[in-house]
Amino acid sequence: MTITLHYFDVRGLGEYIRLLLIDQGIPFTDHRFEVFGEEWEKLKKTMAFGQVPCLTDGNEEYVQTGAIMRYLGRKYDLYGSNISEAAYIDMVFECVRDLRMKYARYIYYSEETKENYDNVTLPGILENLSKLLKTKFVVGDKISIADYVLFEELDVANTTAPGSLNKFENLKQLHANMSARPNIKKYLSTRSARINGVDRQ
Amino acid sequence: MTITLHYFDVRGLGEYIRLLLIDQGIPFTDHRFEVFGEEWEKLKKTMAFGQVPCLTDGNEEYVQTGAIMRYLGRKYDLYGSNISEAAYIDMVFECVRDLRMKYARYIYYSEETKENYDNVTLPGILENLSKLLKTKFVVGDKISIADYVLFEELDVANTTAPGSLNKFENLKQLHANMSARPNIKKYLSTRSARINGVDRQ
Ligand SMILES: N[C@@H](CCC(=O)N[C@@H](CS)C(=O)NCC(=O)O)C(=O)O
Ligand SMILES: N[C@@H](CCC(=O)N[C@@H](CS)C(=O)NCC(=O)O)C(=O)O
Repeated sequence: MTITLHYFDVRGLGEYIRLLLIDQGIPFTDHRFEVFGEEWEKLKKTMAFGQVPCLTDGNEEYVQTGAIMRYLGRKYDLYGSNISEAAYIDMVFECVRDLRMKYARYIYYSEETKENYDNVTLPGILENLSKLLKTKFVVGDKISIADYVLFEELDVANTTAPGSLNKFENLKQLHANMSARPNIKKYLSTRSARINGVDRQ
Repeated sequence: MTITLHYFDVRGLGEYIRLLLIDQGIPFTDHRFEVFGEEWEKLKKTMAFGQVPCLTDGNEEYVQTGAIMRYLGRKYDLYGSNISEAAYIDMVFECVRDLRMKYARYIYYSEETKENYDNVTLPGILENLSKLLKTKFVVGDKISIADYVLFEELDVANTTAPGSLNKFENLKQLHANMSARPNIKKYLSTRSARINGVDRQ
């Protein structure tokens, strides 16, 4: 049974999934294609929702980031050890989604100014996330799906709004801990410095 | 241990949770308050994220709709019976979320016209949902958290864009099946005819 992740050749929503698979040392095919390129136009027609990320595991095909991450979380024991831990993981996950959605509103739809995003929206959500993070990882000292999404989002914030994590010691620490995990460290050192197709400043 | 749901006195995101609790016959306090009223202004300050829905279960407090629904799903066995069923439930759940998000973009932010929403966006997502729904409920003949969110969203679509379900026989059937469940039927007969604070046409 081999796992394949189908996604554009950018970080985007696929990056949460890549980070999890890479960190856990799970072999997978990282099937990347150009954003809205020819390959995508063909592939789109064969896909359940015509959208990516899409993960195939043997004969099963999963779409929706929130479904794929949770599937991997259940399969590889990265989803807490009881229902209240799982709920806590989901709370952080959903809070990160709110942040990503607001980021998308600002970056793709220009429905918010950079100034308001950087000074009001982003710090407001980072503060909520900082309150939720009480231990080394989201749940104690065992990594979970929430840590991968949180890490990626902090890394994006750190790049698009440099210094934005400075006020939040625990978020900075989580970012540092995640970056230092051997498989992630190796991956980051080779990763294309592009976020959502935009070159990093 | 008593469960309390804290939410505005409208359907909104809280309605998914109410429908689940009511249908399952789980006793709970339906704590409702006026949208942005005085009671909310006070309550907001005491809440983890300053947002609702918020569910308290004994001493535990959960926020984020996606976390609350999944918590209840795990607690009351409404989340499939293996990891691939759970992933399927999540796929439908996330697809409904995409629909709600697009609905919000149109209704609250006026970022889409009613015409485009009704004729392009809504039918596109309904088609995806219709493809996913292959059995009586989302997963076989056993109800799950996905059926409650799907039902509520179909009911909203049915009201704001009358006739929008007509092309999708299986979605119409799910809507009818859910409406006919005794506890839901009784609740719907007394429910205020308001969606998100707006009177139904
Ligand atoms: N809610 C979905 C959103 C998926 C989505 O928006 N995918 C985009 C890329 S990030 C896509 O496939 N766009 C290409 C298209 O729609 O043709 C998820 O979380 O997976
Ligand atoms: N992603 C969150 C969104 C929560 C949210 O946007 N809540 C709104 C009501 S639907 C709220 O509390 N607004 C009042 C406020 O922010 O003061 C969820 O799914 O629960």
